[in-house]
Amino acid sequence: MYAIGVDIGGMSIKVGLVDENGKILVSNRRKTGRTSEIAIENTAEQIKEILEESKLSEKDIAGIGIGCPGLIDSENGVVDRNSNMKWDKFPLVAVLKKHFDVKIKISNDANVAALGETIFGCAKDYKNAIMLTLGTGVGGGIIIDNKIYEGGFSQGAELGHMVVKVDGVKCGCGRRGCLEAYASATGLIRMTKEEMNKNPLSDMWKFVDGDIEKTDGRTAFECAKKGDVSANKVVNKFVKYLSEGMMNLMNAFRPEAFILGGGVSAQGKYLTEKIERYCEKRFYGYKHAKKPQIVTAILGNDAGIIGAASLVM
Amino acid sequence: MYAIGVDIGGMSIKVGLVDENGKILVSNRRKTGRTSEIAIENTAEQIKEILEESKLSEKDIAGIGIGCPGLIDSENGVVDRNSNMKWDKFPLVAVLKKHFDVKIKISNDANVAALGETIFGCAKDYKNAIMLTLGTGVGGGIIIDNKIYEGGFSQGAELGHMVVKVDGVKCGCGRRGCLEAYASATGLIRMTKEEMNKNPLSDMWKFVDGDIEKTDGRTAFECAKKGDVSANKVVNKFVKYLSEGMMNLMNAFRPEAFILGGGVSAQGKYLTEKIERYCEKRFYGYKHAKKPQIVTAILGNDAGIIGAASLVM
Repeated sequence: MYAIGVDIGGMSIKVGLVDENGKILVSNRRKTGRTSEIAIENTAEQIKEILEESKLSEKDIAGIGIGCPGLIDSENGVVDRNSNMKWDKFPLVAVLKKHFDVKIKISNDANVAALGETIFGCAKDYKNAIMLTLGTGVGGGIIIDNKIYEGGFSQGAELGHMVVKVDGVKCGCGRRGCLEAYASATGLIRMTKEEMNKNPLSDMWKFVDGDIEKTDGRTAFECAKKGDVSANKVVNKFVKYLSEGMMNLMNAFRPEAFILGGGVSAQGKYLTEKIERYCEKRFYGYKHAKKPQIVTAILGNDAGIIGAASLVM
Repeated sequence: MYAIGVDIGGMSIKVGLVDENGKILVSNRRKTGRTSEIAIENTAEQIKEILEESKLSEKDIAGIGIGCPGLIDSENGVVDRNSNMKWDKFPLVAVLKKHFDVKIKISNDANVAALGETIFGCAKDYKNAIMLTLGTGVGGGIIIDNKIYEGGFSQGAELGHMVVKVDGVKCGCGRRGCLEAYASATGLIRMTKEEMNKNPLSDMWKFVDGDIEKTDGRTAFECAKKGDVSANKVVNKFVKYLSEGMMNLMNAFRPEAFILGGGVSAQGKYLTEKIERYCEKRFYGYKHAKKPQIVTAILGNDAGIIGAASLVM
């Protein structure tokens, strides 16, 4: 069985042919068109090129799955709103249906990444998983019984915008104290800089050659590993906020696996072991409740295409 | 169609016969037995009495539904842990099966209350709802497609133990800053007392006849309605924490209805309108996301029996 996965991003649209093992056989990439209409006309061409290249026809594929950032009405196949790309109530699935007479499904990009990891990636031994993507923001996806949970209005979960600190740091969404404001790479960098400004002797200054603007999501982690006390403080604070958010979700959903993706998750076991230690004493009903496995994403840049394809597999 | 609903509490066990309209036709109540075994033997007798009284036999009922506090393994019908009653890994459904050859199901008491309200109560126009019970603690239930969402390990949601204030007030569960520590009646009373101690001239002192120990969940609300500034501060703080918790859940689940139950919810529209105003400006993707109806529970003390019965209807 084959399926087409479409990974829509603000900069480019990636399309791939995925096989039943979650392997990308052929793929291409094009700059995202200026308008939603142009972008999807281009995407249709990208798909046709891939089918041609692999000598397949529509009837050889299970369908086309699409991951797209923003607020997605997955039930009706409509991009309700993507602020970044300025797409508004765009009936993406209907437009693409004009080109292809196959099953076409769409969901939020964080959701499809979570689905891809659960079906083919780090959580493939589980059917119920939650994924948080720790990047510029914090995205999230909830998988129940190997399917994306889209919520009552099928507009998907926004797990990054869960307030973990009432009256806390202002978040881009307008609220204060969202998980995203602390557990994103952006939040981590802010907390790192704050600590550096408090501690001119921290090794973190050496790590960035004395230029605070070179601070990134690795600064605190790498210096903490070498024993820098200030860096360790930053890491512990980051772990604390992230873990509290994760436990909130564990208590609500009780997933079997908790997947971390995005740049910061590259810290791998160094990060997940700290989270496990933090949660161990605090997880609700600790001795009696089952705890999820905490794992890090393995599909990397391919998660978008693979996850999208798994929507129709 | 009839079903038996069993509402297990620390003090007493209530059993009722419920019809297809969610009406309780006959019911009885007995003190909760000293051990889990005795309690359930008694319950079996209560059920037999009700069947006898209503001249029904096992084949006339759709089954027996049970709501029980604590950590419930609903899939296997086991009370994993009830700290209050000291029930541990008690296979309640299997024990009751010895007496009745009908479908028997169990879930957490907050879950069945949410189900009852969604099937027969204030949210009967909706299929996807979340309920928070604002009592001594904060309980919660999630209804997806008219069914209780039990989570990956079928141990149910613990929505009160969602941290909304990292490093906040200590909660009974061991974490700090749980929703329960602010949005329960207990939390409300604590905040009321704190404010009273700061403001000896507040009308709240008159409301409790000068005795701070008479403070209850109504004190701040009733005095705020009459214009007391300090009382209004308490109410606004309560509304803020509760609303932030509710928005966290809305962003994750996007329910069609959000049900408030428990003592504090008796404030009705006075409370829900304040919550709506608070959320209006802060709900993620406000203009584009659909917002749930905020409603207050109507089944009251019957919610336990009716909700439990609806487990098997």
